[in-house]
Amino acid sequence: MATATPRDRLLAAAADLFYREGITATGVERLCSVAGVSKRTMYQLFPTKDVLVAEALAATGPATNASFLPDDAEVDPRERILHIFRVLEKTAERPQFAGCQFVNTASDLRDPEHPAAAVARGFKQQLTDWFAAEARTGGAADPDLLARQLTVVFDGSAARAVVHHAGLDGLSVTTATALLDAAGVR
Amino acid sequence: MATATPRDRLLAAAADLFYREGITATGVERLCSVAGVSKRTMYQLFPTKDVLVAEALAATGPATNASFLPDDAEVDPRERILHIFRVLEKTAERPQFAGCQFVNTASDLRDPEHPAAAVARGFKQQLTDWFAAEARTGGAADPDLLARQLTVVFDGSAARAVVHHAGLDGLSVTTATALLDAAGVR
Repeated sequence: MATATPRDRLLAAAADLFYREGITATGVERLCSVAGVSKRTMYQLFPTKDVLVAEALAATGPATNASFLPDDAEVDPRERILHIFRVLEKTAERPQFAGCQFVNTASDLRDPEHPAAAVARGFKQQLTDWFAAEARTGGAADPDLLARQLTVVFDGSAARAVVHHAGLDGLSVTTATALLDAAGVR
Repeated sequence: MATATPRDRLLAAAADLFYREGITATGVERLCSVAGVSKRTMYQLFPTKDVLVAEALAATGPATNASFLPDDAEVDPRERILHIFRVLEKTAERPQFAGCQFVNTASDLRDPEHPAAAVARGFKQQLTDWFAAEARTGGAADPDLLARQLTVVFDGSAARAVVHHAGLDGLSVTTATALLDAAGVR
């Protein structure tokens, strides 16, 4: 951390605080204090908090999505899709789980035109596109529909874990399985 | 409005602002200004903002849940369940749609011990219990599982509408239908 640049420290503090405490809840003062950077320096690096919000999400989004993906050793499309939900189940069991960071960003900002809302939308679409490609390989009747359905299960399951502050107990895997069966992905 | 009590005006302003702008984003100053009530009066009525958050949600929650329910003229459990999703589709098409207010409350507060988080959890559980009762009447293989799945579809669909700032185009109805079919509710 000592050798990280002020820019990297700000992005890391932002990603952490925005996820744990929320974007609106995190003021610039607190952000700079946690990053160990002056407000003057912050505003030299990021013209507004909104820009920092978008850049912090853009910086962490790829790793977030990647953390759910199976490795190449798993080749069966059905198993590759279910892997995502098995990781979600494990992730949702952590006490610090606060939901999907992309959904949270869109919801917290309440502004679809915000630059970070566009970034969030892009990362959610990446997951849906990944589901669609796997569904196509797996012979789904309607791969794009199945992909949207699986994304709904992903986000609805995450919401449930937040609302009940409890693990999912297999619910997301069971629901995804029912939709894979219905779409003919065996 | 002129005859509404300060307490009613505060609860109405809180419910409106919390939904449209977020709980954290809404300061006590703004709340009192919109309600036309002094801060002194507010704190005489509600010891803390947290209490007001919980009471505002408790006051609006029953009408929110009721707005999705079918009337008694519809007796078929499958149709009664699908009615909920048809209303969701219509609701999510409104430009001012900002997601499920109960999920938003839990997510915004980031504190499962907050009194309003408990209120939010109770209203979500009411919907799940309603689904379970209908699923049981409809002969579902596992009514409680189907009820949790349908709640996941409800919340995941709402999240999708927020993220994409777009209507659902039948997605929630199609997904609920697939799960009803899988559970044997014809």
